[in-house]
Amino acid sequence: MAVIKVHGSPFSTATQRALVCLCEKELEFDVVPVDMRAGAHKQEPFISLNPFGQVPAFEDGDLQLFESRAITKYIEEEYGQKGTQLVPSDSKKKAIASVWTEVEAHHFDPVTSKLGWEIVYKPLFGLTTDQAVVEENEAKLEKVLDVYENRLSKSKYLGGDCFSLADLHHLPNLQGLLGTSLKKHFESRPHVNAWVADITARPAWAKVLALKGQA
Amino acid sequence: MAVIKVHGSPFSTATQRALVCLCEKELEFDVVPVDMRAGAHKQEPFISLNPFGQVPAFEDGDLQLFESRAITKYIEEEYGQKGTQLVPSDSKKKAIASVWTEVEAHHFDPVTSKLGWEIVYKPLFGLTTDQAVVEENEAKLEKVLDVYENRLSKSKYLGGDCFSLADLHHLPNLQGLLGTSLKKHFESRPHVNAWVADITARPAWAKVLALKGQA
Repeated sequence: MAVIKVHGSPFSTATQRALVCLCEKELEFDVVPVDMRAGAHKQEPFISLNPFGQVPAFEDGDLQLFESRAITKYIEEEYGQKGTQLVPSDSKKKAIASVWTEVEAHHFDPVTSKLGWEIVYKPLFGLTTDQAVVEENEAKLEKVLDVYENRLSKSKYLGGDCFSLADLHHLPNLQGLLGTSLKKHFESRPHVNAWVADITARPAWAKVLALKGQA
Repeated sequence: MAVIKVHGSPFSTATQRALVCLCEKELEFDVVPVDMRAGAHKQEPFISLNPFGQVPAFEDGDLQLFESRAITKYIEEEYGQKGTQLVPSDSKKKAIASVWTEVEAHHFDPVTSKLGWEIVYKPLFGLTTDQAVVEENEAKLEKVLDVYENRLSKSKYLGGDCFSLADLHHLPNLQGLLGTSLKKHFESRPHVNAWVADITARPAWAKVLALKGQA
């Protein structure tokens, strides 16, 4: 049995963020399913792993973590020599990649999480999409993608010349929206479109999508 | 003139986050005022420093950064030997501090930013506070503080035994709410109350508050 355990679901975007990082680093891991339909993430024993009751939680031996972006940063630091290098070594390049990692967290994620909930998940649960929320956040998404288009016209990846956590963290929410009408906002911006094609074609991401099929 | 420049305002919470980090590290810096009332943050030359048009932006020689939490992480990495150590050296302790740094970003900041806007800033601008938004976010804040109370009953600081970026990042939004009726939610939780008293009493934070008086 692998030492690394990810408690969560391959259908959860935050869980996918940890999983794609593990796949990029070519690490062995076990996914411990959390039955979210039964509310297992809001009860013991899960809330001892994450007091906020959200997947994923993560174990590496006796170390227990939560928050997907803290998990990916730990994986990269602890297993720096394995698989893809996901944070630049040079301190200035690292700082710039860190800026775009924060951009994902504070600009892309809030907007795309709301859109995913309204457009992807609410219909699955038989709930009604709030069109006002969609319109407000679609406008915000377009502004974020305008900044990305400009950035990606000068830099192959958001964080710099090489694929890094700044790009990787986008994959789960991005993939969700590519299956909706909002795909047009990515396709209409040529540099964003090329970046989307590049990062979604990574073998590590294909492995995470395959895990959904097996779950 | 100092090599480090912070473009922003001592009245902006995100600017304060960068400034308190610089003060903890005992670094020299210049604050370059950005006239936000005149919309200078939405125009050139500022938007060449931050394409999202938000303060602060940061310069250290030829390195230009934005996003306050990327700035603090860079400062700690680049000037690790100076002033207060703000990230643990041990890799497991560092990972746990990183979890609580993400908790600030994804649980505390969204809720307290909304509350600050409704309760502190809207009245200043002659706008009407939306009580429904306040009630919704006040309930969320209480849940976050319940988790903090439990965490702080076992650990002196959120990130571990020592003050770290996980705590420092809270200071600006926290200070804003201490001047409102929401102070009661911090005071009614004994471990949260002791933590608030501890971190708001740090000399570095007093220096940042003094900068407001000079601006």
